[in-house]
Amino acid sequence: MAQLCISKAELRARRDRLLKELGERGLGAMVLFSPVSIFYLTGFAFLPTERPQCLVLHGGGKTMLYGPRLEVEHSDETADVDEVQSYPEYPGETHPMKVLAGLMADMGLAKGPLAADAPGYSSGAGYKGPRLEEVLPEVKITLLPKLVEEYRMIKSPQEIALIRESARWGNLAHALLQEYSKAGRTETEISAAASLEATRTMIKTLGPGFDPRGGRGAGAGFRGQIGPNSALPHAMTKNIVLRRGDVLVTGANATVWGYNSELERTMFVEEFSAQQRKFFDLMVRLQDAAFEAIKPGIPCSEVDRKVRAIYEQENLWSYWRHHIGHALGILGHEAPFFDIGDDTLIQPGMVFSVEPGLYVPGLGGFRHSDTLVVTGDGIDMITYYPRDLENMICR
Amino acid sequence: MAQLCISKAELRARRDRLLKELGERGLGAMVLFSPVSIFYLTGFAFLPTERPQCLVLHGGGKTMLYGPRLEVEHSDETADVDEVQSYPEYPGETHPMKVLAGLMADMGLAKGPLAADAPGYSSGAGYKGPRLEEVLPEVKITLLPKLVEEYRMIKSPQEIALIRESARWGNLAHALLQEYSKAGRTETEISAAASLEATRTMIKTLGPGFDPRGGRGAGAGFRGQIGPNSALPHAMTKNIVLRRGDVLVTGANATVWGYNSELERTMFVEEFSAQQRKFFDLMVRLQDAAFEAIKPGIPCSEVDRKVRAIYEQENLWSYWRHHIGHALGILGHEAPFFDIGDDTLIQPGMVFSVEPGLYVPGLGGFRHSDTLVVTGDGIDMITYYPRDLENMICR
Repeated sequence: MAQLCISKAELRARRDRLLKELGERGLGAMVLFSPVSIFYLTGFAFLPTERPQCLVLHGGGKTMLYGPRLEVEHSDETADVDEVQSYPEYPGETHPMKVLAGLMADMGLAKGPLAADAPGYSSGAGYKGPRLEEVLPEVKITLLPKLVEEYRMIKSPQEIALIRESARWGNLAHALLQEYSKAGRTETEISAAASLEATRTMIKTLGPGFDPRGGRGAGAGFRGQIGPNSALPHAMTKNIVLRRGDVLVTGANATVWGYNSELERTMFVEEFSAQQRKFFDLMVRLQDAAFEAIKPGIPCSEVDRKVRAIYEQENLWSYWRHHIGHALGILGHEAPFFDIGDDTLIQPGMVFSVEPGLYVPGLGGFRHSDTLVVTGDGIDMITYYPRDLENMICR
Repeated sequence: MAQLCISKAELRARRDRLLKELGERGLGAMVLFSPVSIFYLTGFAFLPTERPQCLVLHGGGKTMLYGPRLEVEHSDETADVDEVQSYPEYPGETHPMKVLAGLMADMGLAKGPLAADAPGYSSGAGYKGPRLEEVLPEVKITLLPKLVEEYRMIKSPQEIALIRESARWGNLAHALLQEYSKAGRTETEISAAASLEATRTMIKTLGPGFDPRGGRGAGAGFRGQIGPNSALPHAMTKNIVLRRGDVLVTGANATVWGYNSELERTMFVEEFSAQQRKFFDLMVRLQDAAFEAIKPGIPCSEVDRKVRAIYEQENLWSYWRHHIGHALGILGHEAPFFDIGDDTLIQPGMVFSVEPGLYVPGLGGFRHSDTLVVTGDGIDMITYYPRDLENMICR
């Protein structure tokens, strides 16, 4: 079995790439507040709270992870950095941002120009504090909020291997979800039973070396998308009871060393109507058209445009609700998007969901979502769950 | 059974309070981007993504919820607002922030002074876009990022009722967790089994009228805090196998119409050592001291200070990792904090966790967390799980 992690060499290469680009811009260091960027650059996954956390990347010196005292041992154990520094607590007697400024002065960063991914730390969990420029008044700060996000767009072979491993356990969770989906049962019990069994099996199979890095195992569910309620693409769980003839829109995933995949299916409880079949077939046609359109070198918008042509042709606009896919990896939704307004060029190594949908009020929602990786000349599917109508019946 | 929701009258009163305060500041309207503030003011719970969403509160006109096409039916059904407006998709052919500017101009808000809780929409999920001041160049925007957060500090009777109901199902999840915690089992299976059973029971008990509003039922688990690993207060799940003599630090919660409680316990698998008992007893003493210190009218810092006196007296600083509690409600962590640096005055209606901890490398972590509400002259406990050593043994 391949090593299910991002190697230290790759984490270092990510930091080196960033430092090189900063150097070219005349910036010797960068402060990163984004938890996703911190994870991407150091492998440190944590629960963001009111307590500020950041990474200081210093081309000429040490890489420092900075956070509250309570994360020190956890950081020492899992973060690939030169040093871990901490403040006692938030808000504390001295604000953590002031403590940070002192540490950065010690690193020789009190005067030079500096990059940052945000003006300061931010959190909805009751945090208040000064911006970086307020605690380092002599430093010119260049905000580069999207730089690491752009790096994350092209996935490395190690990242793709983790996403493939995620898809494997998402597939199991989904197969169990389908097996347990029966008329009379509630979404909560079906989802919980499938998720528990898939997670246990994943953990037993991968053995003690498996490191979820912040993930909570494998899971599958409906998020309320059951029967007529499935016509709401972002419905919320309401614990609906499944009934014969319901359309179900599912979702499954597993987190493997912080990476994710996406698998969604349109299924039916026992039987489907002629109307349901019609929309199911149209949805599969939309998804097939997207698969065919995706090629390196063309803009993302082009894929949306080709699928939109079918909505137009078949008079489907009243059932349209959203664009047809998004990148994913560490996060479930990442840029770029298969959207008429996103002209980012598709490149090999990008990982996308493809999920055009049809939402028919009163009847239900129709959406498959698959994860794929762009290759040198087309696509390689990452998810592999059956897509055909015959296999979508829950009995 | 009391109605398990926030009434429309209370949602309206929250908005009226905000509009009144804005009026006093000469501001007739406010744009709110925070999903928590949108939920607090309208009852609309949604999954934040790359698609911008905001609430426009207009004293002289209609209250408008603005978001992507895919949320329209969901908004119409659950948001207490005058009107729902949408853009087709993000990024789309016209950026959603520009569409917003046009709608605000139609509302007569293109020129007047305006409040906002943030410079614009933000999201880690691949969103990019202009600030509000860029799309409404003639408007003077006053940023009031913390106003609604301050309102949220004092909980209403309806909110306290929801938090109490949350604690009830957290209690059940925790009781099941304790029952299923046995040497040889893994944290994942124990946690999943307890969470599933508690959620099913909660849903059956509360009946079809129960509305989780974005919550996923009841849950209990360890988050990796098992045996020596429990000495890391924010450990992550690693699926550790429980062994005889392990210290366990648990956590349980349930979401009821968007509101939460917090219950954590220090437990032992079958038996405890003399050393473990010593730290357990000290931890209970710290928590008791905090309960005794909490009174309306005194600053939050004072509570931390009184507990710190015991850390000092008993020479416990090497086991200290964090302040001793935080407010909670819609979010698991909210301001204010029982922290030496937070001088917010404690007021009746504030709901807090109380959770001083001791973390002994190699031995384990020791932390109970209880939720309480401040009354006119002291506190009223919301959680009610046993706290004594005899009841903390898992057999």
